[in-house]
Amino acid sequence: MKAFHFLALLALAFSLASAYDPSPLQDFCVAIPEPKNAVFVNGKFCKNPNLTVANDFSFSGLNIPANTQNQVGSNVTLLNVDRIPGLNTLGISLARIDYAPNGGLNPPHTHPRATEILVVVEGTLYVGFVTSNPNRFISKVLYPGDVFVFPIGLIHFQFNIAKTHAVAFAGLSSQNPGVITISNAIFGPNPPINPDVLAKAFQLDKNVVENLQKLFKNNA
Amino acid sequence: MKAFHFLALLALAFSLASAYDPSPLQDFCVAIPEPKNAVFVNGKFCKNPNLTVANDFSFSGLNIPANTQNQVGSNVTLLNVDRIPGLNTLGISLARIDYAPNGGLNPPHTHPRATEILVVVEGTLYVGFVTSNPNRFISKVLYPGDVFVFPIGLIHFQFNIAKTHAVAFAGLSSQNPGVITISNAIFGPNPPINPDVLAKAFQLDKNVVENLQKLFKNNA
Amino acid sequence: MKAFHFLALLALAFSLASAYDPSPLQDFCVAIPEPKNAVFVNGKFCKNPNLTVANDFSFSGLNIPANTQNQVGSNVTLLNVDRIPGLNTLGISLARIDYAPNGGLNPPHTHPRATEILVVVEGTLYVGFVTSNPNRFISKVLYPGDVFVFPIGLIHFQFNIAKTHAVAFAGLSSQNPGVITISNAIFGPNPPINPDVLAKAFQLDKNVVENLQKLFKNNA
Amino acid sequence: MKAFHFLALLALAFSLASAYDPSPLQDFCVAIPEPKNAVFVNGKFCKNPNLTVANDFSFSGLNIPANTQNQVGSNVTLLNVDRIPGLNTLGISLARIDYAPNGGLNPPHTHPRATEILVVVEGTLYVGFVTSNPNRFISKVLYPGDVFVFPIGLIHFQFNIAKTHAVAFAGLSSQNPGVITISNAIFGPNPPINPDVLAKAFQLDKNVVENLQKLFKNNA
Amino acid sequence: MKAFHFLALLALAFSLASAYDPSPLQDFCVAIPEPKNAVFVNGKFCKNPNLTVANDFSFSGLNIPANTQNQVGSNVTLLNVDRIPGLNTLGISLARIDYAPNGGLNPPHTHPRATEILVVVEGTLYVGFVTSNPNRFISKVLYPGDVFVFPIGLIHFQFNIAKTHAVAFAGLSSQNPGVITISNAIFGPNPPINPDVLAKAFQLDKNVVENLQKLFKNNA
Amino acid sequence: MKAFHFLALLALAFSLASAYDPSPLQDFCVAIPEPKNAVFVNGKFCKNPNLTVANDFSFSGLNIPANTQNQVGSNVTLLNVDRIPGLNTLGISLARIDYAPNGGLNPPHTHPRATEILVVVEGTLYVGFVTSNPNRFISKVLYPGDVFVFPIGLIHFQFNIAKTHAVAFAGLSSQNPGVITISNAIFGPNPPINPDVLAKAFQLDKNVVENLQKLFKNNA
Repeated sequence: MKAFHFLALLALAFSLASAYDPSPLQDFCVAIPEPKNAVFVNGKFCKNPNLTVANDFSFSGLNIPANTQNQVGSNVTLLNVDRIPGLNTLGISLARIDYAPNGGLNPPHTHPRATEILVVVEGTLYVGFVTSNPNRFISKVLYPGDVFVFPIGLIHFQFNIAKTHAVAFAGLSSQNPGVITISNAIFGPNPPINPDVLAKAFQLDKNVVENLQKLFKNNA
Repeated sequence: MKAFHFLALLALAFSLASAYDPSPLQDFCVAIPEPKNAVFVNGKFCKNPNLTVANDFSFSGLNIPANTQNQVGSNVTLLNVDRIPGLNTLGISLARIDYAPNGGLNPPHTHPRATEILVVVEGTLYVGFVTSNPNRFISKVLYPGDVFVFPIGLIHFQFNIAKTHAVAFAGLSSQNPGVITISNAIFGPNPPINPDVLAKAFQLDKNVVENLQKLFKNNA
Repeated sequence: MKAFHFLALLALAFSLASAYDPSPLQDFCVAIPEPKNAVFVNGKFCKNPNLTVANDFSFSGLNIPANTQNQVGSNVTLLNVDRIPGLNTLGISLARIDYAPNGGLNPPHTHPRATEILVVVEGTLYVGFVTSNPNRFISKVLYPGDVFVFPIGLIHFQFNIAKTHAVAFAGLSSQNPGVITISNAIFGPNPPINPDVLAKAFQLDKNVVENLQKLFKNNA
Repeated sequence: MKAFHFLALLALAFSLASAYDPSPLQDFCVAIPEPKNAVFVNGKFCKNPNLTVANDFSFSGLNIPANTQNQVGSNVTLLNVDRIPGLNTLGISLARIDYAPNGGLNPPHTHPRATEILVVVEGTLYVGFVTSNPNRFISKVLYPGDVFVFPIGLIHFQFNIAKTHAVAFAGLSSQNPGVITISNAIFGPNPPINPDVLAKAFQLDKNVVENLQKLFKNNA
Repeated sequence: MKAFHFLALLALAFSLASAYDPSPLQDFCVAIPEPKNAVFVNGKFCKNPNLTVANDFSFSGLNIPANTQNQVGSNVTLLNVDRIPGLNTLGISLARIDYAPNGGLNPPHTHPRATEILVVVEGTLYVGFVTSNPNRFISKVLYPGDVFVFPIGLIHFQFNIAKTHAVAFAGLSSQNPGVITISNAIFGPNPPINPDVLAKAFQLDKNVVENLQKLFKNNA
Repeated sequence: MKAFHFLALLALAFSLASAYDPSPLQDFCVAIPEPKNAVFVNGKFCKNPNLTVANDFSFSGLNIPANTQNQVGSNVTLLNVDRIPGLNTLGISLARIDYAPNGGLNPPHTHPRATEILVVVEGTLYVGFVTSNPNRFISKVLYPGDVFVFPIGLIHFQFNIAKTHAVAFAGLSSQNPGVITISNAIFGPNPPINPDVLAKAFQLDKNVVENLQKLFKNNA
């Protein structure tokens, strides 16, 4: 019983971790890790500010190319509040994106909580976003040193149209931008959406939809 | 020349109309209409508060069923700041949604700037939304008097699964929620997205993509 | 002692529940119930997002007329974050309002944290709000399908001027709008306000004030 | 016609003045005066930042006692953005309040857009506020050097219970807090509220209501 | 072991105190004290609203002159959320500032989270602030009853240029404005900044920097 | 006169340009250039959204090393809303920073409106920031691929401690972060701060202060 008490106490102590809050009400509020079965808040619980150290605000390794050998040929390393706890409450995050040669694609997606500003470090990218109603497509081909902005909530993508690897860095206006990859969210969620809905929405045969649902089942 | 002056002046005078702002800094800030070729602001320009009248805050006709004879079998009447100018700066809007019997669908879409709370007034709706990463699908069948919440920025839909017309009212947490209908934004924007991007993203043959682009060309 | 430990631990574990926060920093943050004698936060504590279910976002029964046999002849069913925990952090709520025939009144009140947009479903309502300094009264008679906006923080009311029951739905721009019914807050709080203050403020005889304080004592 | 052009042009040029916006997006945004019949924005239009001078951020005379010979025996000198244009976008204002001896009253009112923090400089004040639902009354007697907080949107007042003049300073958390004096807004707006509504809401005879409406007609 | 349990439990119970949140989502959210080694949130944890009392919103003693016999000859009594727990979530605080005769100085500093509005009650102050890029200096001499605004985040100071004591009150637009005294933050932090950095930044000899670092070591 | 009319009209038309607003109330609000002597708003005026083009959201040349031959040996290329008009309302910007070998310094400064997240692309940087009261100094040496966060409003710097050129990219959480370089703002503003204030604040001889004021006069 005592042991149970002690573990429960620890579980509770740690359970207060995790939930990242809006604009800062102190210099910073460094997130602490969240255990399972815990209570949460809007944003993250924080550690005692007097105990913060430089490593709470840092991360190493963004110079290392990520593996792009996957279905879409791209890899996003997102340093959000889960990776740099010091970002909690501060409204920004940073990503490195690697694109395989000849068609590496960061597929159409939205960030529900962030605008993105991207700088191409290496390679050639065809990028664009679609406005809400009406749906205009605004696109451009980017070369090294070129910068592009993807406004919050709009569907956007980057596509490597050259024969060489491409790399970009991106700033995002939230410590937890979120990402909704359209193909995965539509055809791959768990449990799946009723295929009649998708067949009607996308004017596809129901068996085409069901085939797509099999293909995307493991991506979501 | 004088005539030009005068028209330009009028154009300018009216051009100050239109742009809806964030949280209110006065009791209200009733939007004024925006002409073409004008300057805009974040939100809308407003009329003199002393000149506001009750009609600036009202709208009539939400009791009238809307026509659902279209591709998806649904019709959304959204009373945002463009329809009720008094909503400017106030962070809310209201919609009536009509669904045709036997499969009327308000197809998968996001509101980039609003959460939606919906109450079913008539009929039976299968509704749901998909979380961001990972993609969980949260759904329910709703009957008259049932209420459901669709969180800001997430893909959601409503589908009429009964043999009768359905009607719902919905509150949205913005005076300009925006709507991104996924099928239209992906396959129908103007100009179209390079089909290679969509073929790779959705694991579809390029000719299937091009066919969808023809089908959705007029919807966007 | 052990038993005390365990109960205290449980009390604490549950006490973390309850406090709803501002704009969302994740897809959603479903509120958990709050026990007595607990700590609170700005907004509500939340459950593990992986454990959320459709019922966290829904409510049933808004099709049922509420009892209007009370002093003012009206009844507000407000679905705020206390009724639909999934509304936490999402900035919206929904109400159904029933009005008795011949004078059912939703009496003058303010929502300190929300603008309201109301649609009349049934009946005839005389509605209005008063601006802050100077005090203009903006009013209108509404019929089924008519919509009206009551800006945040301003005193407003709805009054059934027909011989039939009336029903309205309303969206409010907060998950916890709050309501301050003027008559109750002025004449009915616990403990009561010094009647000299109210006599001077409202230019009433002190005994009239004291009589009103008796009448409103049970309403607050 | 030319003259009309020119005047219209000037009117327009000046009409862009006036509308105070939310949190600052530059060091400051000093408000410029607004003419009649102009367009407005959320907040105020601003002058060129390079032309700002120290006087845009200052005001003189808050050491002078204000006249309290009026119905309620108090006088509020509010330095909001209309008095100090440099306050635009900065979210704060300052007031001096004078209270006549023996019952000078700053009557029950709300600030829809600000919390107030008050320090008594001279005299003795009975102060309090009422919470929203349920209506608790929280009050205290204050002496020189005492400070009290009135949370945003709640009904509050200050009452001079001593035989001497009283003075207080107050900070308010908005450049345009707004004020709704309950008695004036209920009984004095222009045009008046239907007395049947007020009689029912306040459980008063209709002729008492109509009498109050006469008394408060000139205050609103 | 039991004793340890109990103390740990208590420590945890109290540790939930402390973290002040942004705009209020309820009438108020009175902060509770924070122990060492605890979890924190953005803002402060709060007490049960039903247990709040008038003293949670008040403070006494701002009429008492503070001791100005220190290096700079000034003393700031800041009533932030740490001094008045009821200020939590409400976005305002209040300060009294005392200045010694003949050069009492509230030295150049910034408030990272608040604009300040100051009223001179007694004495003569030379005050000013510096804009961001480019650096303009905006200043004025203030006498009793004069008011001045210091915009959020900008470097500002007040300097007593008369032979008498001076006193001012100031409202600040945050419950936790923060203060960064430039001299202390540059020359006095713990541990110290590498003197090579400061020598280069301020074009000072390294030994002058090191001497300043000794002088300011105890101030930070 | 006509010519004057026309020019004035044009001046006015363009004068509406420029003022960037807070969180977006539409997909985007692309800033338009601001002329002299014009009216401004909080943020920037915007162009017609239908006329936006890809170039409104892009910038070229961030791959080009900037000239670091200046007093401090560093150069910041900040892409804020003045450089990429599409950033208006979107709350983010991007910078490239070049550092000369052997002591290139981005000197101690604050961003009053942004947190910064920096990634080192090339070289070795000693970086740090100072907390507000009390003043703790949090620092680290960064190598290529290392990332560091500088919280909003706090004094921070980067210093090249290697024999080679260094380069970093940084995201900032505002479209107009602002920068206050401490040395310039203290010793270099126009007009200068009274040297008595600075001598007392920094415990320096007045002639040392006056010498620094000469040195920094042209930097502000």
